[in-house]
Amino acid sequence: MPKISGAKVISLGIVYEKRMLFKNRHVISMKDFSREEIDYVLDTAEKLEPVARGEERSRLLDGKIISLLFFEPSTRTRLSFEVATRRLGGQVLNLGSVEASSVMKGENLADTIRVISKYADLIVLRHPLDGSARMAAEFASVPVINGGDGSVHHPTQTFLDLYTIRRESHLEGLKIAMAGDLKYGRTVHSLCHALSLYGAEMTFVSPPELRMPPEIVRDLQKKKIRVKETDSLEEIIGDVEILYMTRVQRERFPDPEEYEKVKNRLRVTGELLKAADPGLKILHPLPRVNEISPEVDSTPHARYFEQAFYGVPIRMALLALAMGVIE
Amino acid sequence: MPKISGAKVISLGIVYEKRMLFKNRHVISMKDFSREEIDYVLDTAEKLEPVARGEERSRLLDGKIISLLFFEPSTRTRLSFEVATRRLGGQVLNLGSVEASSVMKGENLADTIRVISKYADLIVLRHPLDGSARMAAEFASVPVINGGDGSVHHPTQTFLDLYTIRRESHLEGLKIAMAGDLKYGRTVHSLCHALSLYGAEMTFVSPPELRMPPEIVRDLQKKKIRVKETDSLEEIIGDVEILYMTRVQRERFPDPEEYEKVKNRLRVTGELLKAADPGLKILHPLPRVNEISPEVDSTPHARYFEQAFYGVPIRMALLALAMGVIE
Amino acid sequence: MPKISGAKVISLGIVYEKRMLFKNRHVISMKDFSREEIDYVLDTAEKLEPVARGEERSRLLDGKIISLLFFEPSTRTRLSFEVATRRLGGQVLNLGSVEASSVMKGENLADTIRVISKYADLIVLRHPLDGSARMAAEFASVPVINGGDGSVHHPTQTFLDLYTIRRESHLEGLKIAMAGDLKYGRTVHSLCHALSLYGAEMTFVSPPELRMPPEIVRDLQKKKIRVKETDSLEEIIGDVEILYMTRVQRERFPDPEEYEKVKNRLRVTGELLKAADPGLKILHPLPRVNEISPEVDSTPHARYFEQAFYGVPIRMALLALAMGVIE
Repeated sequence: MPKISGAKVISLGIVYEKRMLFKNRHVISMKDFSREEIDYVLDTAEKLEPVARGEERSRLLDGKIISLLFFEPSTRTRLSFEVATRRLGGQVLNLGSVEASSVMKGENLADTIRVISKYADLIVLRHPLDGSARMAAEFASVPVINGGDGSVHHPTQTFLDLYTIRRESHLEGLKIAMAGDLKYGRTVHSLCHALSLYGAEMTFVSPPELRMPPEIVRDLQKKKIRVKETDSLEEIIGDVEILYMTRVQRERFPDPEEYEKVKNRLRVTGELLKAADPGLKILHPLPRVNEISPEVDSTPHARYFEQAFYGVPIRMALLALAMGVIE
Repeated sequence: MPKISGAKVISLGIVYEKRMLFKNRHVISMKDFSREEIDYVLDTAEKLEPVARGEERSRLLDGKIISLLFFEPSTRTRLSFEVATRRLGGQVLNLGSVEASSVMKGENLADTIRVISKYADLIVLRHPLDGSARMAAEFASVPVINGGDGSVHHPTQTFLDLYTIRRESHLEGLKIAMAGDLKYGRTVHSLCHALSLYGAEMTFVSPPELRMPPEIVRDLQKKKIRVKETDSLEEIIGDVEILYMTRVQRERFPDPEEYEKVKNRLRVTGELLKAADPGLKILHPLPRVNEISPEVDSTPHARYFEQAFYGVPIRMALLALAMGVIE
Repeated sequence: MPKISGAKVISLGIVYEKRMLFKNRHVISMKDFSREEIDYVLDTAEKLEPVARGEERSRLLDGKIISLLFFEPSTRTRLSFEVATRRLGGQVLNLGSVEASSVMKGENLADTIRVISKYADLIVLRHPLDGSARMAAEFASVPVINGGDGSVHHPTQTFLDLYTIRRESHLEGLKIAMAGDLKYGRTVHSLCHALSLYGAEMTFVSPPELRMPPEIVRDLQKKKIRVKETDSLEEIIGDVEILYMTRVQRERFPDPEEYEKVKNRLRVTGELLKAADPGLKILHPLPRVNEISPEVDSTPHARYFEQAFYGVPIRMALLALAMGVIE
């Protein structure tokens, strides 16, 4: 049988002063990546985009087995990792949420990770507990990519948000509003941190109950990020380039009436958008409930479905870099 | 990376006067297809049959991702689509019933379809609601094949039934009996319509409670189809070429005793088959309960397992035609 | 489309006096295999090991569809069959436990097997009932590999245990201790039988409630196997080459206090291992509960994670032999 040569690594022609070292590196938290490293991942994703669209073929992950170990359901994350793997010619080993949680019950995560390391060439882990991805990385003998663990980290979501912003607008000095549940949303917390590396003007739009945690606001201000807080979309819609909407979950409100009020106030409608800049792009991690009214879908502002697509090239880039098949 | 050339379409050498247009066409209902188009699908399936049997290789769907989006379980339909895709060299993106129904909960079908359109090159949809496939097709940016929606449409089942009849007997002017639950069975309703395009003599065998709906009988008669109704298999077994059995479900009967009586009367046994034409072929969409006695399995009449196999080449044909890789 | 030539069978250069006949043979019970045949399977696994490790590529199962029909969950068995198939270039058709048990409900196993035989080139069956694999083999038109049925047979586990012992120690005249639940553990029963073909000194370590069934002990003694029984690991740890640990399940004990006592007595710790032979290797079919203390993991004695890996080459060998692609 043919030996796998070590010389299969290809170059996409992206050159940086400092040599980027991603091979066998775990992807656990955005905070582990410098701005230069993030740019390198985004550049790689852009090179791979035609493959993600099915317009070009790739065999970069030929012969590689990527294990998707999901201890809680997350359809979009799982599917985009699966598509990313397949479009690069790799194989997927699925361990779904039902199986993972019921069958591995009685075994500790460390043992599970050690066994899966024997089967697969890379592990994507989704787990409900804070810190589980970092812990898994310690026991794994293959690279681990955090597909979301607990309430803090979901780095591939942040990478895809950054990639979407770069592709649809621009990263440097961006005027962005984030709206919805800013208190519990790990997505926006992580995005704030990442955007702060590029400079930004940030507006946080939320009901008083769901404001951005003050320690995050203070941290941003220390980094010279201009921050504004409000509870009204009308007030800010004319002055932003990106509006990042998030869901407000009913469970956050003890009083259902209060939820109804908030829900309807933080809503993007055709009416609201009359005051928007023509270049405004609206993002949303999906699924949406009614934060964005359907008539918005057909406007050029709506980029949330394209954002879902961008999950594919960005995960391709992370998989290929961690496997060391491109550099 | 190599560009995917647009010239990959191959011809199987099937020539029709009118050029058939299937590329990017949705497959929602049998009523969307003319007799000539149906013949074209069946011809294509026949060409692909050696691939379905694993005797020949094909790369027709190489690099294509087929998403199986199943909101209700349907093992046979799912598996045969999966085998069809793989035998043609394509990739499957499975969204199982548990996941689909629990995770996508809170998101409307339109959004789900728009997201999956970004990931896959074609969507096979199975959904409990009438009309959901047609609706999905409106929101999809890729072809949609209806894998069964609600109580009316399940076109790939009808295509496979027609293909089975053509391979095992003949379509033109067929003498067919359909037996079992003819009132609620979408399979037989759709098959009646399709067979009427070829001319046929139809006998409907059912208990009085589960007779073929009168509007379907009238519709067939308008198309000059000779229709006979009875509740006895004995009476008709000597005079048909195809006997299409279906399940009678216990839930249809408020009175369990009534169910037992009906169940045992509409049963194909070795005894019954003594009066059958030697060329009679028995079909059943499966699973069966006890409509067909096990001693029948080893007779040359039994073609229901082969019928299950025919689901593979027919779904290959529909996938390849909708993807535009053959013409 | 290219015909699949029948000449694709490759030789790995393993030569036996007697020609081994595995093609289209079912793998149901260890008792169906002679010592020479077992050796042949182990030799084949060893040849395929670099492929299992991802160091070499293989297309032995290119174009083949392996159906994993699991009526009860068994993550390790399923995953290692899936990895084995993919590393050999084959395709997997997964029928998970949820689906298999809920959807196929109402259909008998014989019909299910007959249908899956139409879709796949080989069936791996996992089923809770004793004898179901043998029964399935009778109805299948493709080879069936028993992935565990009921309380007696799980031949691929035994093959992998033998392979692990051969790779990590030696088979002929082995000094082995088996510890834990020896009464209900099908794994150890089957391993006893298989090892008896090679001669062995066996020590059974268990609480009195969970002793090795006397008929197995008698059977071994008839075959001139030296057997010793004890309830103490300390007593025997200095005198064995392989220690095969198994789980003691809480459900076996009516009295929870009794369970706690037993559980803590049959435990491998760093302390215990001070008296062990330096060459001792510890195996465990996993998952473990607390039979092996974590500090043991980093010692050279611990081979249970490598044992999990060996499931891949051994299942590759069985798949390839049953499909007749090597000889």
